[in-house]
Amino acid sequence: MNSNMEKPYVVGIDIGGTNSVFGIVDARGTIIASGSVKTQAYSTVEEYVDEVCKNLLPLIISQGGVEKIKGIGIGAPNGNYYSGTIEFAPNLPWKGIIPLAAMFEERLGIPTALTNDANAAAVGEMTYGAARGMKDFIMITLGTGVGSGIVINGQMVYGHDGFAGELGHVIVRRGTGRMCGCGRKGCLETYCSATGVARTARELLAARTDASLLRNISAENITSKDVYDAAVQGDKLAQEIFEFTGTLLGEALADFIAFSSPEAIVLFGGLAKSGDYIMKPIHKAMEDNLLNIYKGKTKLLVSELKDSDAAVLGASALAWELKDM
Amino acid sequence: MNSNMEKPYVVGIDIGGTNSVFGIVDARGTIIASGSVKTQAYSTVEEYVDEVCKNLLPLIISQGGVEKIKGIGIGAPNGNYYSGTIEFAPNLPWKGIIPLAAMFEERLGIPTALTNDANAAAVGEMTYGAARGMKDFIMITLGTGVGSGIVINGQMVYGHDGFAGELGHVIVRRGTGRMCGCGRKGCLETYCSATGVARTARELLAARTDASLLRNISAENITSKDVYDAAVQGDKLAQEIFEFTGTLLGEALADFIAFSSPEAIVLFGGLAKSGDYIMKPIHKAMEDNLLNIYKGKTKLLVSELKDSDAAVLGASALAWELKDM
Repeated sequence: MNSNMEKPYVVGIDIGGTNSVFGIVDARGTIIASGSVKTQAYSTVEEYVDEVCKNLLPLIISQGGVEKIKGIGIGAPNGNYYSGTIEFAPNLPWKGIIPLAAMFEERLGIPTALTNDANAAAVGEMTYGAARGMKDFIMITLGTGVGSGIVINGQMVYGHDGFAGELGHVIVRRGTGRMCGCGRKGCLETYCSATGVARTARELLAARTDASLLRNISAENITSKDVYDAAVQGDKLAQEIFEFTGTLLGEALADFIAFSSPEAIVLFGGLAKSGDYIMKPIHKAMEDNLLNIYKGKTKLLVSELKDSDAAVLGASALAWELKDM
Repeated sequence: MNSNMEKPYVVGIDIGGTNSVFGIVDARGTIIASGSVKTQAYSTVEEYVDEVCKNLLPLIISQGGVEKIKGIGIGAPNGNYYSGTIEFAPNLPWKGIIPLAAMFEERLGIPTALTNDANAAAVGEMTYGAARGMKDFIMITLGTGVGSGIVINGQMVYGHDGFAGELGHVIVRRGTGRMCGCGRKGCLETYCSATGVARTARELLAARTDASLLRNISAENITSKDVYDAAVQGDKLAQEIFEFTGTLLGEALADFIAFSSPEAIVLFGGLAKSGDYIMKPIHKAMEDNLLNIYKGKTKLLVSELKDSDAAVLGASALAWELKDM
């Protein structure tokens, strides 16, 4: 993976709406030191970067100093790989276009790459996880939203502007679909994210009268975790919610396969860990909806990275590709 | 494009269901000699290849012989780039898996590459046409069916199995869609191909009673050309057919952009030449349905290659990438 023994480590920084987590990672994907700061606690990005550096630098020094670090990789919402900027991220406190990669490079003197969270997850999976050795795969992250990172011919797909791979915003129910946070209707993520699952639960509970454990929870508080717990206890309605969610996702995956014919689709996030309740309908709908030439060829995999580590590992993996400054 | 003056030419062979056309092409995309044979006239592929070689070899010799030819590129239905084979092509007389590239290499001693027609069109557009210099674009061919060729990071997307890029078979009307020749329902090509336009005409004429020039033609004989001619004469129903077709295609293109964020989408084929009748609704529906970050960024272009030359040029362009044997 990295034969440069002079610089045996990379740094991964995952910037979330609540927490920013960072870690020093070796070539095998072990996080050997880590820390975090609250993203929202710093009203200017300068203060934020200063605080991250203040916490990160001691970790770097304890591993032998800046000269041991090959690069820094950052995963951030609305991250643009080409420019190293975060652009108009709705969930971050800093508005406009933020040249975050350049700011870290300047302060620490370490080459820095940045991309969005789902792309970072895909690079992480290719470097340390379920997609090791694959040249063509699609990563789908099932979280609060649905994100994606696409790898073709062994390269991340960034598109002409750095923003490729927003498969959570492909329209799966045209005209009649659910309102999405992006302002359009029927996006995949309104159905197949954790919030989409909760939304389906509320809709089904309101539209029907059959018994369900989910009726013990007030509708506005239902989470996808509640639906999973009910499904495990044999709740038919909860199981039907996963069936519905998985079927929609599988149908969408069949269309994605017609685009890039990947070796595998790798699912990441809490929903992907809901076992057969969701994986069986995804797989069935995917195969049922594939064009004949694609049937039975594309693997459906679950991420091999631990949830708690995946974001930092993904971000760090970006840094192995960097050239020295 | 090609600085190897020792081998200044390539050969392009386009294999269609009816005719096979071949030509010798220079680095500027000029077809300097060409010929054709009837594809269906040869019941074995050996006879077919012999006949093509018999017609092609004199052309090659007149340009200085085999040593002047850098390579042969073949565009063929169900062509697989990785294996150089045609696999189970329903419209060709030879069944099963045909190792066509190897057969030409053996007979002529010239390196040979093969891919499907739409991919060849994309390589042609990138080498000689509207996509010159572009690293990220999507080619959509609007003919009897709808084909596509996708270029990302300057490379054709073949996928893990050689069959990527079947965007004509993305589902645009789920559940309620038209029956497709592929056995599924609601594929893009059932609406946005030339046959899809004729189908829309028949449906609208049957469902409605308003006057139309198209009522002068017996329903089963209506072609997309008839619809175009009527639209030019101010026929409202014909114009509405293009509006409907363009809207569906534009919606689909917006989803394709969310995948690879291309610099341009290049449309090829008769329908793409229907001017504003189709281009305006395509462009409007595409922009209306794009996620905000993509709006106004992707060009919608029409192929710059002449219809009659495009297939041979596209196939020939593949050959510039070949290594010497």
